[in-house]
Amino acid sequence: MSNKVAIALDAMGGDYGASVVVAGAELSLARHPDAEMVFFGDQAVLGPLLAARSKLREAARVVHTDVAVKMDDKPSQALRHGRWRSSMWLAIDAVKKGNAGVAVSAGNTGALMAMAKFHLKTMAGIGRPAIAALWPTLRGESIVLDVGAAIGADAQHLVELAIMGSAMARVVFDLDRPTVGLLNIGVEEVKGIEEIRDAHRILRELACDQMDYRGFVEGNDIGQGSVDVVVTEGFVGNIALKTAEGTAKQIGAYLRNAMSRTLAARLGHFFARQAFKTLREKMDPRKVNGGVFLGLNGVVIKSHGGADAEGFAAAIDLGYDMARYNVLAKISQTIGKSALFAPPAIRGVAS
Amino acid sequence: MSNKVAIALDAMGGDYGASVVVAGAELSLARHPDAEMVFFGDQAVLGPLLAARSKLREAARVVHTDVAVKMDDKPSQALRHGRWRSSMWLAIDAVKKGNAGVAVSAGNTGALMAMAKFHLKTMAGIGRPAIAALWPTLRGESIVLDVGAAIGADAQHLVELAIMGSAMARVVFDLDRPTVGLLNIGVEEVKGIEEIRDAHRILRELACDQMDYRGFVEGNDIGQGSVDVVVTEGFVGNIALKTAEGTAKQIGAYLRNAMSRTLAARLGHFFARQAFKTLREKMDPRKVNGGVFLGLNGVVIKSHGGADAEGFAAAIDLGYDMARYNVLAKISQTIGKSALFAPPAIRGVAS
Repeated sequence: MSNKVAIALDAMGGDYGASVVVAGAELSLARHPDAEMVFFGDQAVLGPLLAARSKLREAARVVHTDVAVKMDDKPSQALRHGRWRSSMWLAIDAVKKGNAGVAVSAGNTGALMAMAKFHLKTMAGIGRPAIAALWPTLRGESIVLDVGAAIGADAQHLVELAIMGSAMARVVFDLDRPTVGLLNIGVEEVKGIEEIRDAHRILRELACDQMDYRGFVEGNDIGQGSVDVVVTEGFVGNIALKTAEGTAKQIGAYLRNAMSRTLAARLGHFFARQAFKTLREKMDPRKVNGGVFLGLNGVVIKSHGGADAEGFAAAIDLGYDMARYNVLAKISQTIGKSALFAPPAIRGVAS
Repeated sequence: MSNKVAIALDAMGGDYGASVVVAGAELSLARHPDAEMVFFGDQAVLGPLLAARSKLREAARVVHTDVAVKMDDKPSQALRHGRWRSSMWLAIDAVKKGNAGVAVSAGNTGALMAMAKFHLKTMAGIGRPAIAALWPTLRGESIVLDVGAAIGADAQHLVELAIMGSAMARVVFDLDRPTVGLLNIGVEEVKGIEEIRDAHRILRELACDQMDYRGFVEGNDIGQGSVDVVVTEGFVGNIALKTAEGTAKQIGAYLRNAMSRTLAARLGHFFARQAFKTLREKMDPRKVNGGVFLGLNGVVIKSHGGADAEGFAAAIDLGYDMARYNVLAKISQTIGKSALFAPPAIRGVAS
């Protein structure tokens, strides 16, 4: 554990660019003194920001570029204009070349995924990459994937998602054998679509010692934290994630409204202000910021574009864990072992 | 408006059976004095419950049967054993024969849908039925459909859902031209799947004066109330609905926890107790109880199995509106008008 963990940072992504990236890196470095922060961006902007932070400056390197992918560039545009030279590309390239263990960007999601796919390529045994999200639950946090990388999934891909998600849970939650559930609906006699039923059958038969497959879960199980890893295809996962975010915002608005309407309510709010603060912190989306691109030959973390320094630091923290505890090796390991048990539908990689 | 609105009630469905159904009917009757409540169930149980409620007894009729569909019957079992004679079947049959304007049941969803489909058949111009839910939002309520009747949807079915949902919004929200959105994700360059893009194109070209199509919405738009009607296929809709329910429960638990942890918080809670009551009422799922089966030759309302009297009354209220303001005629009307504008993909019914 004496080696530095190099983290490639796209310093020109996100709504606020370098100022948030540098401030976030400073926060994360304080928690991970063995990290090396490699900034890709405009030296003229980064220089002064780093000059004011002596500790960070010592642990930092700057690779200059003044080419940035715009937040509203289409992925194809970003690839055409930003390849080889943009801060986003160079951060991914550092991972590709082994100069960094992970890349973190608050830039445009579509462009980031397109570049990561193009440059890093999918790893052996995985058909398509996925985006995994940390989801706050009543029992702590769960991992939900895919939240939007790939639309539609056959049984094979759902099984791959289970393998990738459980490898991530082993790293992020420090578990030996995370519990895994397959998102499904329970309304009709024919419960769920064929792909999901097939994936269910395969996962039940895997008897894998890297994950504890628990069967189907429903939408309400996610927030309850019924399982450590919730597996679903990218369209459904994205809708579920945004619906939950919308619901949390909605209830927050109800609460603010209710607490300011009468004198008694305002008085109550005053007395309970510490409790409300705890609640706000519990619901703080910045603490679980970061979508993880899994299934490529290298890990890329997508921070929310609007993240502040604390939010961006959370994305770096997540990237640090993924690199330090080598999530890719854990995925490969499970794919390898699964192949021993898997029906022909699983393209395994011999371990 | 002088005609009675007859409502067929499955008095043997739900976790609590007749006691909740009768108490719910009493509550709803107080709000709709022109309703006639037709109970299908065991006379020996219903008799005493009605005897204690003179107003309800005057507006009630009882059709005796002692055959009940069990909450855990599979739809095929329910059809085999419960057809012709169960309380659930007889309530649907009353709608089929025109003896009731709507049927309401808290029984097993799969069985109810199977019987409704079998007996009522899909209406002209509609391929498959849907379940529509009322969703509380920051702006009031929206309708989301399909929340679980049919898995997967082609463009044609999504357009039908838009037509059915907007007809329901005209009835329930008393709007001339409800706004309609198509649920989609906005992460990748290729936004959403082909069926959704095709439906988008068709809806944009419909230029229909019964609905105001607003384009794509995302998961977080539902709770914001961005549109009156949110259209999606049944798998995604069910996951979204249950995810939102789970999130609301999760935040409720956080809140209770935070408010009881310290003396100051408990004191604050005491002062703000009225505000918390308002909040609880705002989030009360009983007020929006009732999934509406749309697209059949007759309307059936599914109440939550665990609903109490207030919740079941909300389902009856909803059924009353659907019958009184003739949602089926409004659906037919829109299908007919849409046909004038529609590309060949829309199987219209000439009006």
